[in-house]
Amino acid sequence: MCGIVGYIGEQQAAPILLDGLSKLEYRGYDSAGIAVYNGTDIEMVKSMGRLKVLDELTHGGSTLPGTAGIGHTRWATHGSPSDINAHPHFNRDGSIVVVHNGIIENYLKLRKKLENKGYEFVSETDTEVIAHLLDYYYKGDPLEAIVKIMHRMEGSYALGIMFQEHPKQVYAVRKDSPLIVGKSQVGNFIASDVPAVLKYTRSVYFIENEEIVRMTNDSVEFFNVDEEVLEKTPTTIEWDISAAEKGGYEFFMLKEMYEQPKAVTDTLSPRLKDGDIVIEELGMTDEEIRAIKKIYIIACGSAYHTGVTAKYVFEGLARIPVEVDLASEFRYRNPIFEPNTLAVIVSQSGETADSLAALREAKSHGIKVLGIVNVVGSSIAREADNVMYTWAGPEIAVATTKAYSTQLIAHYLLAMKFAKVRGEISEEVFQEMIEDLKRLPAQIELLLANKERIQRFANRYLATEHVFFIGRGIDYAISMEGSLKLKEISYIHSEAYAAGELKHGTISLIEEGTLVSAVLTQEELYKKTLSNVQEVKTRGAFVLAVTNAGNIEIEKSADYVIYLPKTNKYFANSLAIIPLQLFSYYVSLGKGLDVDKPRNLAKSVTVE
Amino acid sequence: MCGIVGYIGEQQAAPILLDGLSKLEYRGYDSAGIAVYNGTDIEMVKSMGRLKVLDELTHGGSTLPGTAGIGHTRWATHGSPSDINAHPHFNRDGSIVVVHNGIIENYLKLRKKLENKGYEFVSETDTEVIAHLLDYYYKGDPLEAIVKIMHRMEGSYALGIMFQEHPKQVYAVRKDSPLIVGKSQVGNFIASDVPAVLKYTRSVYFIENEEIVRMTNDSVEFFNVDEEVLEKTPTTIEWDISAAEKGGYEFFMLKEMYEQPKAVTDTLSPRLKDGDIVIEELGMTDEEIRAIKKIYIIACGSAYHTGVTAKYVFEGLARIPVEVDLASEFRYRNPIFEPNTLAVIVSQSGETADSLAALREAKSHGIKVLGIVNVVGSSIAREADNVMYTWAGPEIAVATTKAYSTQLIAHYLLAMKFAKVRGEISEEVFQEMIEDLKRLPAQIELLLANKERIQRFANRYLATEHVFFIGRGIDYAISMEGSLKLKEISYIHSEAYAAGELKHGTISLIEEGTLVSAVLTQEELYKKTLSNVQEVKTRGAFVLAVTNAGNIEIEKSADYVIYLPKTNKYFANSLAIIPLQLFSYYVSLGKGLDVDKPRNLAKSVTVE
Repeated sequence: MCGIVGYIGEQQAAPILLDGLSKLEYRGYDSAGIAVYNGTDIEMVKSMGRLKVLDELTHGGSTLPGTAGIGHTRWATHGSPSDINAHPHFNRDGSIVVVHNGIIENYLKLRKKLENKGYEFVSETDTEVIAHLLDYYYKGDPLEAIVKIMHRMEGSYALGIMFQEHPKQVYAVRKDSPLIVGKSQVGNFIASDVPAVLKYTRSVYFIENEEIVRMTNDSVEFFNVDEEVLEKTPTTIEWDISAAEKGGYEFFMLKEMYEQPKAVTDTLSPRLKDGDIVIEELGMTDEEIRAIKKIYIIACGSAYHTGVTAKYVFEGLARIPVEVDLASEFRYRNPIFEPNTLAVIVSQSGETADSLAALREAKSHGIKVLGIVNVVGSSIAREADNVMYTWAGPEIAVATTKAYSTQLIAHYLLAMKFAKVRGEISEEVFQEMIEDLKRLPAQIELLLANKERIQRFANRYLATEHVFFIGRGIDYAISMEGSLKLKEISYIHSEAYAAGELKHGTISLIEEGTLVSAVLTQEELYKKTLSNVQEVKTRGAFVLAVTNAGNIEIEKSADYVIYLPKTNKYFANSLAIIPLQLFSYYVSLGKGLDVDKPRNLAKSVTVE
Repeated sequence: MCGIVGYIGEQQAAPILLDGLSKLEYRGYDSAGIAVYNGTDIEMVKSMGRLKVLDELTHGGSTLPGTAGIGHTRWATHGSPSDINAHPHFNRDGSIVVVHNGIIENYLKLRKKLENKGYEFVSETDTEVIAHLLDYYYKGDPLEAIVKIMHRMEGSYALGIMFQEHPKQVYAVRKDSPLIVGKSQVGNFIASDVPAVLKYTRSVYFIENEEIVRMTNDSVEFFNVDEEVLEKTPTTIEWDISAAEKGGYEFFMLKEMYEQPKAVTDTLSPRLKDGDIVIEELGMTDEEIRAIKKIYIIACGSAYHTGVTAKYVFEGLARIPVEVDLASEFRYRNPIFEPNTLAVIVSQSGETADSLAALREAKSHGIKVLGIVNVVGSSIAREADNVMYTWAGPEIAVATTKAYSTQLIAHYLLAMKFAKVRGEISEEVFQEMIEDLKRLPAQIELLLANKERIQRFANRYLATEHVFFIGRGIDYAISMEGSLKLKEISYIHSEAYAAGELKHGTISLIEEGTLVSAVLTQEELYKKTLSNVQEVKTRGAFVLAVTNAGNIEIEKSADYVIYLPKTNKYFANSLAIIPLQLFSYYVSLGKGLDVDKPRNLAKSVTVE
């Protein structure tokens, strides 16, 4: 994880670096630091804790003079969060300074080698190795030293680097961790992500693997590992900066939940044209769609959960066999790639390290890759053969809501399109489904309006330690996401279970008063899941049921019922997740936690 | 769940019924009851709690005269455990009595109808509906009444029934719940499972769906729903009855863990012949094996976990794509059946309701089914096209150990055989793997000998509330099983996570001192999982690592390490699970729990 920034220009660097880091805090926030060339040497301030601590230490950056610097906000991987382990890191005499996002996998070996040569280490980080390694190879030419360490490091990195002997330059390089460059009138920037530079420029370069950047006040140059100059074209960013701010909401998560009707509409409506589904950027021909024999859906976290739902949708509508896989598992398990397989990679950021690696694994076996991503120009968007964007806008809260909801829409649209092209769906059903899709935004809004009732319910469960989520089929996929939401922001140990599987072990954990959330949106499974509800009830569980309007006899078995408006069974996830998101939010809020930045978690997981 | 018995003969029925129930207690034990015809009317005794309570109430059955009766041990589905809800259940004047294993799905509708006709219900069970329904249809001919209720009931049932007007007969019938009949010199028996009758006879009839049984002192007759007489042939049971007793062990689970070397040997050695793998009962030709394009592995609970491992083994060795599915999910999800697909159904009992239903679903789509089962003559063994037995012997503890270990062996043997027939494995590697297989029993024994050390470690965690199990690939499958073991017998909320997925949410639950069990047997994933170990360590976790001998540098990161002997990477599960089984056992023992009969759980899950 981690976020890095760098600036060189005419203005004071420290306040700009702090401002940029504040936009990247979603990438990690257990410690932060900045280093600035002050005219004679490189001055560094860093501290454990949120960026706020660093901001106070430096009076908003004002105590640090100088117009060139780098900064870092950290999510610990090697070495616990501490002042010492915070970035930047110096070489031995403080003449070279580095910030790093990624993991150097061979750092123990490198550290031993450097220790044998007399280098002394002050931190437990893998990053300090980079500073000393640069020191070892630096003979006056920064570019030469950077290329040499690139050959020595295994793993992933985006680095910002400054050399005291070259105070009018800032360097950067990346491999498998994201890095962008912003060019503006007041100077030049590096950053892990676009929002960090949006205040100053909309002209952004996406840096590719193993490309090196050299910036001065008024120039940006790019080099490959042979130190040859590269020509790169900037991309113009269309986002509105206000979209990355909180508005009147207490937390980004609530704001983003409320943006779901709009995000779903934005993702849907440009694709619904004259009773058909048209995904302009997709670029797959009907022949290609008809040729598909199998689909892999590969993702992490909530995006993976959309894949679990999508398996039912693709198999049910388009009758194409689907295998859903965790990216971290897929990339290492030597999967069998059959001809005419399509790999669908789902990622909000488009930078999720495991998902990106899975994409490359699939491509290296000649498999076509379709990316479902939210960030235009992100690595997955660029490397996939075909792409479908989710138009959710920037998502800041660590717990995803609107990106998740738009990923579901992307799956529905693709599955319906595939079903139509392959002749597996009648025109009548297709049109009915389109009407159901169009109703989703208003239905989501209706469910969001129910928030006070859910808040009152949530407030009863602030002290609970265990929650179980059960469902069958798509309802199981919904339960997985409901459970993850609760877990990640409330620190309650919740777990999702296929309802029919509960009796094979987990039911032994049900005690008097244990909260069990049951999702029953699939009418053909309703009775079966109702039997499971009765089983946990019999053992004392308190049952929260989420089910379709009309199923009122469930009130005999469940203690608390939330009813959903009518929609096509394949779209039920889009509605059922809303009350579960609200429940998690209000439990976290009621417990007084930082909803947007849960402990130990970061938004965009760019390490494995 | 539930277990039913019945007896009619020359001896006093009650002690025989109690003895039979004691052998079925693994099927449920929240209440029990018996009913006996005492010469004038049907006398019933029933009670909440273990069978012991009933035994004391009736002085071992001696206070109940009569030589014909039925009995029941219950695992609650409809209505909480109570005296009233315990079986047997009477009709209104006590002239008809019923015991039932299964679930009547339309019982609410039937109950309403009967209430309208003036029937009064005393219990909350679905079973009482059956007694009143029999009353409603009974006009003097028991067989006629039974056939009539069969047409009215939806769901699953095995019933034992007595009519006061026909005191010299005991009736039974089944659909989708198991039922056997034992014939002996001293009378005749019905039971849910073979051990209940083994003391009296080895001659057993397996009753098929919708077959009706009528027993007298010296006759057993079988009828179909048209009341036509059926000819059935008995099976001779070869099991040794002592195998179903505890020996010197405190709990069956410990005994069964110690039987694993023998069970693995019994499952392995008859199949290893002259450097080849021969599975006599399998009956698949090489052509059939070569034709397989895809494998579904379908199971529940621990058997499902063996399937998760088997996916890696089949895909890795035989290069056949495998999809693993929970039986309760598979049967309802409208899966796509492609030609040349093989469905592998894994079940210890061979009676698991969901697995059996999945088998029938697959067969109804023309898919060949291979059963991996432990009980000869069980429903899955009989209905599968091909079968491979695991020779684990009877398993009594609810938490499976030796059946699980033998299921793994079955997968290894099948995958190796398939790989060889399909030319995907060199003779050299094949022979090396056979040597590794042969070493497993002794290696398991070595790990079992380590039990005191694991007991000391387990004793530190008796008060813990949350445990996480992490691993990648096969190590993830091992973690799933390690987690389920702990959960089902210790009531600790444990959860397995793909190690790379932890950072997408669950890591927010890691606090100072949280126990994390990491499995690292797969050398190519070792470094990646080690990174995840460091991530949880950094957040305060106490890490128990299970890894291969030689990986000693892990002691820098993990707090407690268990080393495994060397074996082929595909077989690592068979070794790594042993310390995790022991850990669960000793936590449960240390907490003073009933290891063999965890609350809410039953051994053989014959309801959905």
